[in-house]
Amino acid sequence: MKSLALLALLLAAPATVADIEASAPPSAWRPVAPENLLLIDTAKGQLAIELAPGFAPAHVAAVKALVRAHAFDGGAVVRVQDNYVVQFAAREPQLTVGSKALADAVPPPHRAALPAEYEQAAAGVAFTPLPGADAYAAQAGFSDGWPVAREAGRLWPVHCYGMVGVGRDTPPNTGDGSELYAVTGHAPRHLDRNMAVVGRVVAGIESWTALPRGTEALGFYKTPAERLPIGHVVIAADVAAADRPRFEVMRTDTPTFAAYVDARANRREAFFVRPAGHVDVCNVRVPVRRSTKTS
Amino acid sequence: MKSLALLALLLAAPATVADIEASAPPSAWRPVAPENLLLIDTAKGQLAIELAPGFAPAHVAAVKALVRAHAFDGGAVVRVQDNYVVQFAAREPQLTVGSKALADAVPPPHRAALPAEYEQAAAGVAFTPLPGADAYAAQAGFSDGWPVAREAGRLWPVHCYGMVGVGRDTPPNTGDGSELYAVTGHAPRHLDRNMAVVGRVVAGIESWTALPRGTEALGFYKTPAERLPIGHVVIAADVAAADRPRFEVMRTDTPTFAAYVDARANRREAFFVRPAGHVDVCNVRVPVRRSTKTS
Repeated sequence: MKSLALLALLLAAPATVADIEASAPPSAWRPVAPENLLLIDTAKGQLAIELAPGFAPAHVAAVKALVRAHAFDGGAVVRVQDNYVVQFAAREPQLTVGSKALADAVPPPHRAALPAEYEQAAAGVAFTPLPGADAYAAQAGFSDGWPVAREAGRLWPVHCYGMVGVGRDTPPNTGDGSELYAVTGHAPRHLDRNMAVVGRVVAGIESWTALPRGTEALGFYKTPAERLPIGHVVIAADVAAADRPRFEVMRTDTPTFAAYVDARANRREAFFVRPAGHVDVCNVRVPVRRSTKTS
Repeated sequence: MKSLALLALLLAAPATVADIEASAPPSAWRPVAPENLLLIDTAKGQLAIELAPGFAPAHVAAVKALVRAHAFDGGAVVRVQDNYVVQFAAREPQLTVGSKALADAVPPPHRAALPAEYEQAAAGVAFTPLPGADAYAAQAGFSDGWPVAREAGRLWPVHCYGMVGVGRDTPPNTGDGSELYAVTGHAPRHLDRNMAVVGRVVAGIESWTALPRGTEALGFYKTPAERLPIGHVVIAADVAAADRPRFEVMRTDTPTFAAYVDARANRREAFFVRPAGHVDVCNVRVPVRRSTKTS
């Protein structure tokens, strides 16, 4: 009787977004692996990025090799384009494939032209579809905590706010991992399937989005003095375990996440007079939290 | 023969976004009426907002009455929430319906509780549908230059980047026009049909989006010292004609705009290896430009 009464109560008062995040059981979260956690120190605080080797393995490997060769130490934020991206670069900002300095710093194979890791076969890749239509693909949804889209047997990560990709020149094989951008505006989904997405900002983006916009074409800064210098850049696995920041991402294949998506689509906070009944993949905003657990 | 050759050339090389904007004929643009142009001066430059009386006439009338009563002069930006909104308030920041100071400044009817102008009957309202699916409504599209959605005989403005609405407390009739927000992140479309949308930023947003984020709940600033003070606020119609800034918005009911939407969906710049084939209503970004014409 007691559990029936509880069930009735739950059905009568479905949870809000805040309720679900606060009461999510430990099993509803997955840790960010220290080997996939990129930490970037600046005078504006630390930016933390979870890398996603599942989407672009060669690009992620190249980024890690550059980080471990200290190529990003002394780099800078070089581009801030309003409602679009913040872009940061390794110490030698105009690195191209075959650049002498980087070739010295990072031996092959990472200096070879990288493959166009922009999408992949959907078969065998975890996928939790979002109910409802997507403007760009047959289905949108989530894979292991990441926003993705799927169509005609292909799957690709979606350029939601905070997602991180590898800058490149016009030829597709010119992105070498030495310039990365983070999305800071309405999802520029025309970039989907055109760029190697290597991760997502999990902390600190609010400092970078508040940087002055660049006044040159595409939001590049006009002078080096305008750039935000980057200090030390490191993979968390290379930091002493006791000193690592730790993060958890809400798993996207659980009943908790299904309830979270439903609560984002049907906002039950008293403020809303007319819940939308729908939510798009980039407005779901997969929860991320700091963790005190050691891993 | 000549025009056939030109036609063949056009078909062979469809235009890019930049081509279409640059070559749009004068008839593809409409001026922003000085009576609907709100100008807000701050130390970070001028913010210009086109008001939209067609969506929320009583709210727009209230905003104009407040501006003309100088209620915004000496106001401030009070809230900057990352990936969400920038909010600014009249001089007396916690104004509520019936507030004595404002009642003195602005006589009825504008001080009465405003109607819930969150959506309207679709019949008779201009509407150019966007091809393809929308995640939130049966149709998305444009009406007189504004992004809108339509379903079941109803039409409402969409909370795209830069759209401006009237802040309110939990009861729907508590928004009086003395606190306005501008969207500064991925379209928060759960606000659609829940807020009175009164306009859109047409210039200057990049200074406000670069403001430091507030550290209190919902991004409110903790101390008055953190706020960006607002200087003079005026309706452009009240400025001498020679001194008014002028803007034009691309009309959304023309072949030029149809070509623009197509070019946003099928990016033909050499950079793109795989055009999306689709575009969502908030990624279309209706073009706005400064004009030198007098009106």
